[in-house]
Amino acid sequence: MKKVNQPQPQPGSLAERLYESQSPIIIGVAGDSGSGKSTYTQGIEWLLGPGLVSQISLDGYHAEDRAHRRVSGRSPLDPQANHLDKAAEHLARLRRGEQVEIPTYNHASGCFDAPRLCSPTPVIMVEGLHTLYPVFSSVMDYSVYVDTVPAVKLVWKKARDTRERGYEEAEVEAELKRRATHYEQWIAGQQNDANVILRIHPSELGRLAAGVLNHQDIEPSYHLEVIVTPIDDYDQPLFLPVDLNNMTRQQALPFMLATVSSEFHGRDVNVLHVDGHMAPAALETLEREICQFIGLSAPAGSPPAAERQPAAVRFAQMLIAWPILNRIAALTR
Amino acid sequence: MKKVNQPQPQPGSLAERLYESQSPIIIGVAGDSGSGKSTYTQGIEWLLGPGLVSQISLDGYHAEDRAHRRVSGRSPLDPQANHLDKAAEHLARLRRGEQVEIPTYNHASGCFDAPRLCSPTPVIMVEGLHTLYPVFSSVMDYSVYVDTVPAVKLVWKKARDTRERGYEEAEVEAELKRRATHYEQWIAGQQNDANVILRIHPSELGRLAAGVLNHQDIEPSYHLEVIVTPIDDYDQPLFLPVDLNNMTRQQALPFMLATVSSEFHGRDVNVLHVDGHMAPAALETLEREICQFIGLSAPAGSPPAAERQPAAVRFAQMLIAWPILNRIAALTR
Repeated sequence: MKKVNQPQPQPGSLAERLYESQSPIIIGVAGDSGSGKSTYTQGIEWLLGPGLVSQISLDGYHAEDRAHRRVSGRSPLDPQANHLDKAAEHLARLRRGEQVEIPTYNHASGCFDAPRLCSPTPVIMVEGLHTLYPVFSSVMDYSVYVDTVPAVKLVWKKARDTRERGYEEAEVEAELKRRATHYEQWIAGQQNDANVILRIHPSELGRLAAGVLNHQDIEPSYHLEVIVTPIDDYDQPLFLPVDLNNMTRQQALPFMLATVSSEFHGRDVNVLHVDGHMAPAALETLEREICQFIGLSAPAGSPPAAERQPAAVRFAQMLIAWPILNRIAALTR
Repeated sequence: MKKVNQPQPQPGSLAERLYESQSPIIIGVAGDSGSGKSTYTQGIEWLLGPGLVSQISLDGYHAEDRAHRRVSGRSPLDPQANHLDKAAEHLARLRRGEQVEIPTYNHASGCFDAPRLCSPTPVIMVEGLHTLYPVFSSVMDYSVYVDTVPAVKLVWKKARDTRERGYEEAEVEAELKRRATHYEQWIAGQQNDANVILRIHPSELGRLAAGVLNHQDIEPSYHLEVIVTPIDDYDQPLFLPVDLNNMTRQQALPFMLATVSSEFHGRDVNVLHVDGHMAPAALETLEREICQFIGLSAPAGSPPAAERQPAAVRFAQMLIAWPILNRIAALTR
């Protein structure tokens, strides 16, 4: 499955082992529509490149398009309003190395597009509303749940749905309200057993200021909470070099990093918190160390569009990519 | 002023320049009794060693001993109940290189001991209740204020005053209450212009947990807030290597590190937050980097008593030592 124009992996490295793997590794990413699922899991594709990673959206398995939903009144959040069995069968076939015709839903038009022929890649990222439902558990190797708190969700969904999907602002607000009950009923419970849960809150840096917070920043910042099932078999340490001078320098980048271990739905987890901004140099060090772990001289994917990827988001992408890559490493050993 | 059995400083280094300096650099440390002033500023003495650093307490300049205060009812927090002019004169003489007889107050007995003859060292740390009062401003090269919030102060002061100073628990509580007004009236205002303010809060790691915080720790932990006047002329970067694996490992060390820039009493400051525990390896890296900056192969002082110096406290000592050392470097250039 090797591609040209990509960095050559080192012999025996994770990337090399992935190129030679027979059975795709499937990573499930669940969360509400507009929760930022794809943004935060893009790190894997950026690091490994399109030759090793492909994306599948379960939205293609909605039972109805937008026009039909308006008539039936059914919510796409209802698992019964989706062909999940068919999706599970498709994933099982991809896992066996078969090509599959994946149905696709067009969020701009609200209609289904022609299905696209999908060939298995060594890593397949599957995102959707119900990705962590039990029907998929036999094909999922790792699970990620993205939970954007309502205040942030509203801002994002407004921006996206009005710009890209042709909705009015009032429609988005009304829909979010209506969906809140459905979300609790059908979607939220999936996070209880996810390997990684990412929660996106509004920035809380203000409460860390002595007096008034100085806003010299232009990038919006969020408080990211990453709940991780502990792993103990890391092959390589991963150091983030925090320059303490930056903390006492004029025009310091506001930044917060924390970890605690806690109990989440009866199981031991670690919780990582990141808020604010990341020094680009530290981010580059991190990306370099992760590439070294993978066995590539540089990320194999296209660089993320800079204006939509502030350093803090790229940092979150690395934080989520890291346990996934370690899971992949364990599976290809 | 060179001592034997100390690491030899590199030629031209900060330590070498200090050994050859003619006029002592005086660092003022103010804060309430029992606020942890000496604990948090010990870093300088531990790094530079007793050949370069000495400590002076302004408590020796109290006008009355404990027995006389019980009769007069005067508080030692009242600047009028202290011979501050005499203290300022003594500091000015030390600055000129003269030996001075420093009066000493014995907290265990509540009486004055015999004065001790004090020879000037290249760095003199002066701590006391009124160290940042204007009477001292012409002799102070850098100022630190330590502010322990009441909840933490009570726990510490109880432990110390009952164990080492012969007070009853109820006496300590009553005294703290009585002192609160005096503290606001005479002491707290000194922080407004301090170069570094250290605030010690109870740990806030609990609010960062997803559900219940796991307490696998034995060391008590505090939330330290360091408010720093920004400096832009650092000679050397100072990297804290944060191992991100530690964050997702079983038995992870709970830890929080943050910085924001904000406004404090009308001036621009940066605020650093540290809570929880520090990986010993990261701390050693930090101490090594700071020693390199000073020009020593290892800290020149006696190692801090381990049982009273959890890693987070040593980290705070380094965080406070760093801007002070950079100020010293600027003064000896």
